[in-house]
Amino acid sequence: MSTTHLQYILELLGTLVFAILGALAIEDKEKDWFAAGFMGFVTAIGGGSLRDVLLGSYPLVWVGDVYFLYAIFIGVLMTFVMHKQLAKLRRTFLLFDTLGIGFFTVLGVEKCLQLGVAPEIAAIMGMFSAVMGGVIRDTLSNEIPVIFRKEIYATACLAGAILYLVLHPYLDRNLTLLLSIGLIIVLRLLAVKYKLSLPSLK
Amino acid sequence: MSTTHLQYILELLGTLVFAILGALAIEDKEKDWFAAGFMGFVTAIGGGSLRDVLLGSYPLVWVGDVYFLYAIFIGVLMTFVMHKQLAKLRRTFLLFDTLGIGFFTVLGVEKCLQLGVAPEIAAIMGMFSAVMGGVIRDTLSNEIPVIFRKEIYATACLAGAILYLVLHPYLDRNLTLLLSIGLIIVLRLLAVKYKLSLPSLK
Amino acid sequence: MSTTHLQYILELLGTLVFAILGALAIEDKEKDWFAAGFMGFVTAIGGGSLRDVLLGSYPLVWVGDVYFLYAIFIGVLMTFVMHKQLAKLRRTFLLFDTLGIGFFTVLGVEKCLQLGVAPEIAAIMGMFSAVMGGVIRDTLSNEIPVIFRKEIYATACLAGAILYLVLHPYLDRNLTLLLSIGLIIVLRLLAVKYKLSLPSLK
Repeated sequence: MSTTHLQYILELLGTLVFAILGALAIEDKEKDWFAAGFMGFVTAIGGGSLRDVLLGSYPLVWVGDVYFLYAIFIGVLMTFVMHKQLAKLRRTFLLFDTLGIGFFTVLGVEKCLQLGVAPEIAAIMGMFSAVMGGVIRDTLSNEIPVIFRKEIYATACLAGAILYLVLHPYLDRNLTLLLSIGLIIVLRLLAVKYKLSLPSLK
Repeated sequence: MSTTHLQYILELLGTLVFAILGALAIEDKEKDWFAAGFMGFVTAIGGGSLRDVLLGSYPLVWVGDVYFLYAIFIGVLMTFVMHKQLAKLRRTFLLFDTLGIGFFTVLGVEKCLQLGVAPEIAAIMGMFSAVMGGVIRDTLSNEIPVIFRKEIYATACLAGAILYLVLHPYLDRNLTLLLSIGLIIVLRLLAVKYKLSLPSLK
Repeated sequence: MSTTHLQYILELLGTLVFAILGALAIEDKEKDWFAAGFMGFVTAIGGGSLRDVLLGSYPLVWVGDVYFLYAIFIGVLMTFVMHKQLAKLRRTFLLFDTLGIGFFTVLGVEKCLQLGVAPEIAAIMGMFSAVMGGVIRDTLSNEIPVIFRKEIYATACLAGAILYLVLHPYLDRNLTLLLSIGLIIVLRLLAVKYKLSLPSLK
């Protein structure tokens, strides 16, 4: 299997997982199936869509390739059928979420570089790709977005994006990907384990 | 009067009605005229604008044709002058809202098909055209969006959009329109009458 | 220094000030540095970005010119280092905010006219340029957007935008700018001083 194929399959899998995470995120509420599906959809496509709308890069990924929609549909369906089992896997999902934000951050950065965007912008857009789906979901649900209440989250994505931008002129792509995604995962898991937050203004 | 003319007039009328519904929606709050007008505006143009921004289809309808802005302006003005009388017509407005979401869903689907979008995407975009204006309004007002708290609403739009996509290769346009909008109206009115909701995850 | 240079420097300064205002706006909360920086960023670029996305005018200003990002970065950094001193300057910042919304409203109107947009649309987009960054920030923070709770604010921008559109065919550019921005500043400061609001629907 070529790297391109592997990457495409990982993108679909990541989208499916984000849809499950998004649909599960509202499980505690008295929301109906439609709301759960909608939230899964928004979580899965929100970040990348915002990035592409801000860049004017059309068509949006899921508009141009309907398989992403099917990945979301399967993820939401899995949530409906197995939500009791899935809800017990929160620890596993934390890991999946961490893998997902690492992967989507770096892919977002790469897309920006291919579009000729300045690296400073690419770092922000990479972070947006990973975290803004959750932000839009939380805003629609009238909750304080997760990136403002959790331990270090978006900051880890930003750090990984910057590492990618620093390394990619010198190292080969796979190594750069590995190190950048690795940094995001390590930062995030350490933050969760030791409840690390950035200092507040006060 | 040709069908095209009729459709254009219905679009302007639908925009006017959505502006009234949006401006009235905040009547209970202590918001001022500007807020009411702004909410009317957002409700009327939000859904179609989100659809067109996601599709990269420019200019947005109301940016390219200033008559839509006038329709909104008249709707908001009517709300200011007659809001006491209008507030008594809530039952009538429920009907108008239902007609409106049916009409805008199907027009949104048709626009997507003309732009060559896949039918799966067209169904979602059609539903977005009808309901996302209200979602944006509610999010700005810090309320749980109407589509997450009401009886079957967006789901009816989705069903009508899918029916349109199934029928349109076989039936002529007017019959397809009639049946799809009819399905949305019937589903929605039944849901209101019998307080039908989709099951929740619990 | 040419007018164009002066305008560019004012745009960067205005962006810096809006970033400070945005980052300070959440000082009362227990949010961390990332949240403060993010809010400064959103406040500074939100209005212009929404305008340009609605117009399909790419690249967005801050995506095409990375100096705007540096202006935001400096503003956020200043907030971190000097937030106690800055927090005492609220009266001064009210003045800066008022200058800023006047300036950005009129620049937004001019950009629309250059893009060939109808004047009615240009007035709305000018107002959006000035106030929607704050609206997006407040929506993300789960607060009622400032334009719905404050004394006359967005309405002053709208009035200034309309004055610009009325005057610009007859007067030279600098005088038109001066009078339009002046109207916004006077309306806003009078509204704050005398606690003027538009009437509410009730």
